[in-house]
Amino acid sequence: MAIIRHHNQTNEITVDLSTAAVISDRVYAGFGYPSLSDMEVTTAMGLPLTYPPFVMSVSKRGLKLDQVVCQPYTVGWFGVQGKREVRLACFYLEGTVNMHARPLEGISVVVDLEKMQISEYFDRVRVPVPKADGTEYRPSTVGATTVNRITVVQPDGPGFKIDGHIIRWANWNFHLGFDVRAGVVISLASIFDVQKQEFRRVLYKAYVSELFVPYMDPTEEWYYKTFFDAGEFGFGLCTLPLEPLRDCPANAVFIDAFYAGQDGKPIRISNALCVFERYAGDVMWRHTEIGIPGEFIREVRPEVTLVVRMVSTVGNYDYIVDWEFKQSGSIEAKVGLSGVLEVKGTAYTHTDQIKEEAFGTLLAENTLGIYHDHFLSYHIDLDIDGEANSFVKNKLVTKRVKDNNSLRKSYWTVEKVTARTESEAKIKVGAEAAELVVVNPNKKTKLGNPIGYRLIPRSPPASSLLSDDDYPQIRGAFTKYDLWVTPYNNSEKWVAGLYADQSRGDHTIATWSERDREIENKDIVLWYTVGFHHVPSQEDFPVMPTLSGGFELRPTNFFEANPVLKTSVPTPVNWPNCTSLHK
Amino acid sequence: MAIIRHHNQTNEITVDLSTAAVISDRVYAGFGYPSLSDMEVTTAMGLPLTYPPFVMSVSKRGLKLDQVVCQPYTVGWFGVQGKREVRLACFYLEGTVNMHARPLEGISVVVDLEKMQISEYFDRVRVPVPKADGTEYRPSTVGATTVNRITVVQPDGPGFKIDGHIIRWANWNFHLGFDVRAGVVISLASIFDVQKQEFRRVLYKAYVSELFVPYMDPTEEWYYKTFFDAGEFGFGLCTLPLEPLRDCPANAVFIDAFYAGQDGKPIRISNALCVFERYAGDVMWRHTEIGIPGEFIREVRPEVTLVVRMVSTVGNYDYIVDWEFKQSGSIEAKVGLSGVLEVKGTAYTHTDQIKEEAFGTLLAENTLGIYHDHFLSYHIDLDIDGEANSFVKNKLVTKRVKDNNSLRKSYWTVEKVTARTESEAKIKVGAEAAELVVVNPNKKTKLGNPIGYRLIPRSPPASSLLSDDDYPQIRGAFTKYDLWVTPYNNSEKWVAGLYADQSRGDHTIATWSERDREIENKDIVLWYTVGFHHVPSQEDFPVMPTLSGGFELRPTNFFEANPVLKTSVPTPVNWPNCTSLHK
Repeated sequence: MAIIRHHNQTNEITVDLSTAAVISDRVYAGFGYPSLSDMEVTTAMGLPLTYPPFVMSVSKRGLKLDQVVCQPYTVGWFGVQGKREVRLACFYLEGTVNMHARPLEGISVVVDLEKMQISEYFDRVRVPVPKADGTEYRPSTVGATTVNRITVVQPDGPGFKIDGHIIRWANWNFHLGFDVRAGVVISLASIFDVQKQEFRRVLYKAYVSELFVPYMDPTEEWYYKTFFDAGEFGFGLCTLPLEPLRDCPANAVFIDAFYAGQDGKPIRISNALCVFERYAGDVMWRHTEIGIPGEFIREVRPEVTLVVRMVSTVGNYDYIVDWEFKQSGSIEAKVGLSGVLEVKGTAYTHTDQIKEEAFGTLLAENTLGIYHDHFLSYHIDLDIDGEANSFVKNKLVTKRVKDNNSLRKSYWTVEKVTARTESEAKIKVGAEAAELVVVNPNKKTKLGNPIGYRLIPRSPPASSLLSDDDYPQIRGAFTKYDLWVTPYNNSEKWVAGLYADQSRGDHTIATWSERDREIENKDIVLWYTVGFHHVPSQEDFPVMPTLSGGFELRPTNFFEANPVLKTSVPTPVNWPNCTSLHK
Repeated sequence: MAIIRHHNQTNEITVDLSTAAVISDRVYAGFGYPSLSDMEVTTAMGLPLTYPPFVMSVSKRGLKLDQVVCQPYTVGWFGVQGKREVRLACFYLEGTVNMHARPLEGISVVVDLEKMQISEYFDRVRVPVPKADGTEYRPSTVGATTVNRITVVQPDGPGFKIDGHIIRWANWNFHLGFDVRAGVVISLASIFDVQKQEFRRVLYKAYVSELFVPYMDPTEEWYYKTFFDAGEFGFGLCTLPLEPLRDCPANAVFIDAFYAGQDGKPIRISNALCVFERYAGDVMWRHTEIGIPGEFIREVRPEVTLVVRMVSTVGNYDYIVDWEFKQSGSIEAKVGLSGVLEVKGTAYTHTDQIKEEAFGTLLAENTLGIYHDHFLSYHIDLDIDGEANSFVKNKLVTKRVKDNNSLRKSYWTVEKVTARTESEAKIKVGAEAAELVVVNPNKKTKLGNPIGYRLIPRSPPASSLLSDDDYPQIRGAFTKYDLWVTPYNNSEKWVAGLYADQSRGDHTIATWSERDREIENKDIVLWYTVGFHHVPSQEDFPVMPTLSGGFELRPTNFFEANPVLKTSVPTPVNWPNCTSLHK
């Protein structure tokens, strides 16, 4: 299906690619608009520079027009139906390329995207533009502390194969795709079971379904900043070429991605994805045995994994998205946040001057880092050894010992609670001690354990702190819980709705789940949110050291035994420094 | 101070090393015993093999005595004062070296350590010894799946310096020590502040203070298994030589450790520690800027860190302990759990046969993996830019918008709550949205923000599920909260008490903290528990793929700005595979 915005309406056109025929063409009559296109963005950015009131505002501030750059921001929904429009935030370059650090506060420029012209303009208040000093991040202008050179070497080359869209590596194979909205899409991931001598399905499909970034400043120029980066801007559209040897190590292989431009022609993003084997010096498993008299047994297997990476830069922020496959059967999803903070110009130059709420941290003179969240909702359609799965909370519950024969008074045990419907599955993770498991209730190990995979958070869960009745919260209702489980439905791909721009929250997972559908022994989808409450610190300025989060999908009674017991031990690559200091 | 167990009493002898004179010699009269010595362990292990009732028990089971190996287990405290004794658990080798997988259930052997003889013996019940099949983990007997060779190369060699016990690397320096009880000890860690052109103290000292592993089976042969691996067995004493190229990468430097043997002479653990620069292919910070017309700016700094590693194998389990220093100022503590599960022999060969509570997962025929916890308490004596620090919870609280000028209804903001006393500081992490920060209240950044470091869990918190009145919980009371904060006290080093073996919980952090001492603007110590509720799965058998947990200490307004903005970009090391597939 193609979504076309044309003549002030949104057409949903279904095309049969085999016959190149339009099967249906209907006008979408609901709320919300499709994502911005890159051509719209580029055109809208330039409008203020020839708009006399804006030119005057710049001049009144004593700034140079040719050093001003504007960026389109989606406007959200706050109870009133808006036209298809964006607000422009404008920034100042002079002396730096870090324009995000130099906002022109107090100016509001609204662009009507259908007419592609400025429809509203305010110059409400004048605030100092933060200085350029200390904002530069390019190396030509900076000093250096040093670390020695270091690289990864694979004497026999990379160990994975790329067959079209299929990646084959060690005991894994999977389909690697790209979507203009989601970015990287992993699907059809199966792992070879050495014992059964067959590939077994783990994952039907996984991707970032939405990325919601609400800012916590309710004032005029900031209240609306409640962005849906996937649905409004396109997390895939914002994917940019990776830098060899820096974004990905020396043994990486790069893959281009393509999306349809505004004219329908394919646009290439070169080096959009990279694939590499990761060796971080970690241990896959080990044991030293000194308990047997006369013997010293030490077996260690180094951990080598496969990583698929992309980076999406949505304006100021850079999101490093990793999918990591482990030979032990785990899949780890990781996101690294870097880039530049969204800052607000202010008259403050010291915290002592702050007498009323500032909604952020003073990061530099005249520069506030506004509090905000990052909520990445992952669509995780597991197919654990087949389609029909159930979601089980393995609750760890304390038992009192009633038997007087024991000297213990308590212990904990596992109570398995299968979620029958959607309402039984949604949870705030960590509220109780429980393992979160997806099982195939139709299959068991030889010993009789349910075959499953477990979801383990790898960063502190963070659900939304906004009030339930607040507009951005209604639109980003998925953030109310860390985890939701739904039955598979082809029309439910985007957790905050297909038309996210100015959506009213009537097509989010919260509305889908109101039906409270059955999810037991069904093809189910997990929606897990990797969340960050971000209180900026001075270290995040002028560019932010990566902050990471994610989750692990780990086999739990999926295999009959440790699947990497029989891993080969490749001849170690020697290196002259590998000696003891004391020998 | 030396602790000497001699003639049924524990002497605490203080020695002036400069004059080689004994300053004081007092008998410890409280509860609890010192750790086992390695010579005691070795001697006790052998006793059953010449003990006629045991020889008969083995013979009755049709087993070969020369294939039996026993291991000493501490007995805990269950309300009755015991002699200084251990229980032996015995295992069967025949056909495997994985003795832990083949327990001889039903036999209880108690050894009086003072007399070094068997003081109690029961042969209560006969249970099948699990088979040897599938338990072997040495490569000589197994097949293989393959991955290509991969290694780390540093053309100019490692970039750190070892000056005695001081490690200098990039912007960090710290003291690296070793303790027979704690294992690796990091102290005096300071980071060079490029802006201030001086080293600034971050950490006075950090180490694993205790490792508590209670099992969840209240039956006769298992109820007492509630081990304090540091206090009873010695986490340092159980440190074993690392395997070059497998436990640590090719660019690692190894360091020996020493401890005092039973006769007072030094005993060397060769290659006990390794230090290496870690390059996992990750990104320290990055930004791509495409918002400036006509420009494409992409700056990426690869992440290179320094890791200090040790492995302690406490009987069956292997703990991989990492301290990772990041140029961005973070210190990450990580522990990886591998090795062999503590299993229980059983008649069950299929879960269908289990009609009453089994206290574990059926992992193989006749083999139950008993539920248990791992609680590692880290002693973290931060000295953030000086000794006097405060512990602050930056609570994220929802605010309703009262101002009708805003279209927003809510936002969150930060409320800083300084813990005045110990009782105000102890918490279960994750119960509320809050950042956990240690600040120096006497120093601020130029902008006026409090100088601090933040603690971020890197694995799900797990506090104890045992009842408060249960004996092991009284002894391991630190597990009631994930985090405690105490004022520094030289006598408070071991979170479960100095004499952990058969302790009664009268010298744990819970008793220290009853005084509810002031902790504001003091030299304070954080005690953070990295916990795991471990429900064994079949994948953990016969040897367990590493499961990791840990935490990050991250600067938050410690620096005036991103401290790695001015990081050098070493000439990338090229590699022929670094090409796009599509070019």
